[in-house]
Amino acid sequence: MKKVAILMGSDSDLPVVQKAMDKLKEFGVPYEAHIYSAHRTPEQAKKFSAEARENGFGAIIAAAGKAAHLAGALAANTTLPVIGIPVKSSTLDGLDALLSTVQMPAGIPVATVAIDGAANAALLAMQMIAIFDEELARKLDQARIDEANKVLEKDRVLQSNY
Amino acid sequence: MKKVAILMGSDSDLPVVQKAMDKLKEFGVPYEAHIYSAHRTPEQAKKFSAEARENGFGAIIAAAGKAAHLAGALAANTTLPVIGIPVKSSTLDGLDALLSTVQMPAGIPVATVAIDGAANAALLAMQMIAIFDEELARKLDQARIDEANKVLEKDRVLQSNY
Amino acid sequence: MKKVAILMGSDSDLPVVQKAMDKLKEFGVPYEAHIYSAHRTPEQAKKFSAEARENGFGAIIAAAGKAAHLAGALAANTTLPVIGIPVKSSTLDGLDALLSTVQMPAGIPVATVAIDGAANAALLAMQMIAIFDEELARKLDQARIDEANKVLEKDRVLQSNY
Amino acid sequence: MKKVAILMGSDSDLPVVQKAMDKLKEFGVPYEAHIYSAHRTPEQAKKFSAEARENGFGAIIAAAGKAAHLAGALAANTTLPVIGIPVKSSTLDGLDALLSTVQMPAGIPVATVAIDGAANAALLAMQMIAIFDEELARKLDQARIDEANKVLEKDRVLQSNY
Amino acid sequence: MKKVAILMGSDSDLPVVQKAMDKLKEFGVPYEAHIYSAHRTPEQAKKFSAEARENGFGAIIAAAGKAAHLAGALAANTTLPVIGIPVKSSTLDGLDALLSTVQMPAGIPVATVAIDGAANAALLAMQMIAIFDEELARKLDQARIDEANKVLEKDRVLQSNY
Amino acid sequence: MKKVAILMGSDSDLPVVQKAMDKLKEFGVPYEAHIYSAHRTPEQAKKFSAEARENGFGAIIAAAGKAAHLAGALAANTTLPVIGIPVKSSTLDGLDALLSTVQMPAGIPVATVAIDGAANAALLAMQMIAIFDEELARKLDQARIDEANKVLEKDRVLQSNY
Amino acid sequence: MKKVAILMGSDSDLPVVQKAMDKLKEFGVPYEAHIYSAHRTPEQAKKFSAEARENGFGAIIAAAGKAAHLAGALAANTTLPVIGIPVKSSTLDGLDALLSTVQMPAGIPVATVAIDGAANAALLAMQMIAIFDEELARKLDQARIDEANKVLEKDRVLQSNY
Amino acid sequence: MKKVAILMGSDSDLPVVQKAMDKLKEFGVPYEAHIYSAHRTPEQAKKFSAEARENGFGAIIAAAGKAAHLAGALAANTTLPVIGIPVKSSTLDGLDALLSTVQMPAGIPVATVAIDGAANAALLAMQMIAIFDEELARKLDQARIDEANKVLEKDRVLQSNY
Repeated sequence: MKKVAILMGSDSDLPVVQKAMDKLKEFGVPYEAHIYSAHRTPEQAKKFSAEARENGFGAIIAAAGKAAHLAGALAANTTLPVIGIPVKSSTLDGLDALLSTVQMPAGIPVATVAIDGAANAALLAMQMIAIFDEELARKLDQARIDEANKVLEKDRVLQSNY
Repeated sequence: MKKVAILMGSDSDLPVVQKAMDKLKEFGVPYEAHIYSAHRTPEQAKKFSAEARENGFGAIIAAAGKAAHLAGALAANTTLPVIGIPVKSSTLDGLDALLSTVQMPAGIPVATVAIDGAANAALLAMQMIAIFDEELARKLDQARIDEANKVLEKDRVLQSNY
Repeated sequence: MKKVAILMGSDSDLPVVQKAMDKLKEFGVPYEAHIYSAHRTPEQAKKFSAEARENGFGAIIAAAGKAAHLAGALAANTTLPVIGIPVKSSTLDGLDALLSTVQMPAGIPVATVAIDGAANAALLAMQMIAIFDEELARKLDQARIDEANKVLEKDRVLQSNY
Repeated sequence: MKKVAILMGSDSDLPVVQKAMDKLKEFGVPYEAHIYSAHRTPEQAKKFSAEARENGFGAIIAAAGKAAHLAGALAANTTLPVIGIPVKSSTLDGLDALLSTVQMPAGIPVATVAIDGAANAALLAMQMIAIFDEELARKLDQARIDEANKVLEKDRVLQSNY
Repeated sequence: MKKVAILMGSDSDLPVVQKAMDKLKEFGVPYEAHIYSAHRTPEQAKKFSAEARENGFGAIIAAAGKAAHLAGALAANTTLPVIGIPVKSSTLDGLDALLSTVQMPAGIPVATVAIDGAANAALLAMQMIAIFDEELARKLDQARIDEANKVLEKDRVLQSNY
Repeated sequence: MKKVAILMGSDSDLPVVQKAMDKLKEFGVPYEAHIYSAHRTPEQAKKFSAEARENGFGAIIAAAGKAAHLAGALAANTTLPVIGIPVKSSTLDGLDALLSTVQMPAGIPVATVAIDGAANAALLAMQMIAIFDEELARKLDQARIDEANKVLEKDRVLQSNY
Repeated sequence: MKKVAILMGSDSDLPVVQKAMDKLKEFGVPYEAHIYSAHRTPEQAKKFSAEARENGFGAIIAAAGKAAHLAGALAANTTLPVIGIPVKSSTLDGLDALLSTVQMPAGIPVATVAIDGAANAALLAMQMIAIFDEELARKLDQARIDEANKVLEKDRVLQSNY
Repeated sequence: MKKVAILMGSDSDLPVVQKAMDKLKEFGVPYEAHIYSAHRTPEQAKKFSAEARENGFGAIIAAAGKAAHLAGALAANTTLPVIGIPVKSSTLDGLDALLSTVQMPAGIPVATVAIDGAANAALLAMQMIAIFDEELARKLDQARIDEANKVLEKDRVLQSNY
């Protein structure tokens, strides 16, 4: 099975990124996580990205804050799909990371999810792999049903309380 | 080969979406384009999305402006990856469409590209299909080399002009 | 008497929505509240909205955060007036929910109130019903007078304290 | 039948407001339009609003740009529903008018539509009146079906062209 | 001596407005403070403003949050200078109040100070009165010198500490 | 009679500033206009400001774009009221100039008007002088009545056209 | 003498960057200009940056739009000062490029100038070199005097015209 | 060796500025810190800046919040490079300070770093001095290697923990 890579620019991004790792574990999809910075360790980031396809990865998730270049820097060195998680930092409420991640120039896309949206990044990576993996697709469909049932259960609780 | 679906909320989005269609044609990837609105034809949009996987689609591209709900509405009815193109309209410079597309709640991701970034949406869809399609992956890699050479050629022109 | 429906995308919206329920109770206007998500339970949301008029509702209030599609999704399936409450979440200070709710395309209006403005959503719903309900109109007028008197009383307190 | 009032802060708002008048005419709903400014003719604006219910109006539409106070100033003097159209002016792309219209304090709601969203303001006013007017409700439902068919027809044209 | 009026839309604005009152007291300039809301007590606000000049006021300070209309509503009823303090509320970080206060249409200016800038509003009011009051002008000049000396003293402390 | 000073940071601001000069001429209030830059001619700007009171000025209007420091730099050298006009430039739609002008630190207020709001800057300057000038106050009041009548005349034209 | 490097991400940035080249020519400071993209030609960009110091460069100017990563990518590979010019593109008015350029993480600074501020980028590069180059410092000082005189000349023209 | 000047507009900026002082100490680069306000002590700020070059400074760092004019005011009086640190204050999340610092008019550049980016301001100042100081350049290069190793060490810790 294709693996998912999860890269983050700093260990301060771990609390956000944890949700992506949890989600992949929940679905039994293999992954590797690394701390590589687009600016402080550009060589390692580049090498990982350039070799990711041949190393068995199907998608790369990259989380970074502020002038968030990590997803774009990885995308520049692979044609695997790269998913960007803009991470909120102490100023500007995540807008800087969102725009730095999503506004990529023509030729090098980054599949951007919501600010701090790590769970969705993992789901999106699995949806990509599931294009050709019927069993994973079924699991994802089932998870949707489970989520819907949770919402409906909460609605039932609301009805009995009000 | 898996097909790519391109949906737009209004025919006024066609000039933006055209670049996605051109890019898919360029790579020989089959696609279908439709005008379905999340708000004016919600049933058709939902039906298309719910049946897309069984109808042979591998990814769905959705373009919409303003309170751009189309990508999210499609994503709510399929676990195929949905790619959102926020379209700039006459006010707010595309910020409304960007936030309406990217800030999805946990559970239902939309892979968002840049405002009006239709070419990148097509490339991203092909990168997803290429996870399991080596020939398409090679084509995408080659296109990157061609793009790089164009940049380098422009640099050479610059050197001789200045 | 026409009922008011209050829908929220998630139970995390309850603390905001509570003020709408309190206000309707205060005026003795019947209401029903539900947790239905535009993305996680699109079918239930659609069904509720499509049948709301025949089920005796006069207006629908919808509260959602981030890429807040709930109000728009409901509005797409009814011609009852739909009132949207954009809910502030952990990033972007409510701007994402505001733009996702208010910037609706031509044909499908959403009557948007302030971010987290649940009390005003309830008042607006009652103002709509009061177009043809003189007694409710009188109650709303009286509440305005009471509110004005509270402000004037606070002014009197200020005069004696300073 | 209840009439709809359309007020604008300046005659420069007429090109935007025209779409609201056209929409009301199309549905045969009576309306009156006035140019009254919250700042330059506050007395006339106030008087109109305070007497609107007894003068047979069911809803008031107010269009204004920049620090758009008109809708709020009218809402302060009536408990009829007031619909605000934020009008884009030469700076800030309509954001100033949007925030000035929608961010109303508790007690005095304004039902805000999209920037320059005059057609939706008219539809919303008619939806309010249609709460108790079955024939108008049917007309609004039919218009939705017509709009949907237009979208589907455009989709058919797209299929034959591509 | 001309008095300064300080109006606020709600008693929740008092902590911000307090600094304006303190500053006026410090300079011995007479003032009156009132809680009058542009939306909940429009008549009182209007009456106060319309009679302010004949009642001996030289300038009016108005503080309000969100869709902050108070300063503009007062300015519409007097040609005394009106100073607006945009007050930060729980969403949008004060941007809504700032734009609602400063973006006034031609003909009705509001002299806007920084978000929550109550001390500066008081200083500005006194600077206006001091145009024709040499003693107050001297006091304001002296206060500037005192402020400068405080900064220089802090610089001296910094030099000895580092 | 006190004079009004109009300073602009660049001759490219002249088309905006012209409206301030026209308005002052219309009311017969004497003024002087200068091109002085806070950054390119800081000495002249400072000298003008520091001597403005003794040179017979009652208020200073300053227009500047981008990181608009001119009003603040003048305000730092006088306790005359300084009115800031944020000028829209080729990027950011005037938001940069607005924030640079209005967000002054405690102690040094700038009375900020709307982006490109030069006519209001002139009116505000005259309102300040009119605190102690009954004739000018009467003229300003009359102008308000004239403006109101123009609005009402436009409303009459609208009534006969629709 | 140290050279200045001017890199741009695309030849579409040339009209903006031209002003930097003109300014360097005007002062007789040697420069080299290249089109290298952080995303399309990452290797060339990296190589240029890593070797810039030994190749005789004293500072690097980088211009890019949208998710403008070029300046940051260069800065990651050199400890020469890197100056970033955010370039305005067709959406978001340059805000995306500004935030992507300036919000760099700790450890890797980019000296950011105004959106489209190419002339200032060149001046800043020369100011850096002039720290140890008295003649260039004198030229820069003289240019300031010349600029001031131009402003004062424009003021004189204004005086004679009004 | 050239010294670095660190100026701040208020002692409330000290917690942010401290990181710049720490970084300069760490590299053994001499510096002087002062509290000088562009608005409250304009003369001292101007004098310091005008004499900085002859007093042995190679670069000036200026930190200020809100309508942050300090860096620009210093830059207007010297052709030494001036580095601006926009400081986040209680409203608008630092956006006001960022735009007031970076959007300088042509002729007077300010090298702007991230909001609250004091460590980077110090690094940038040292990078400027290191253009002509090989030993400092070597130290800066070594620090980069040390930073990279810290990131890689954190990655190793992550590998052993997950």
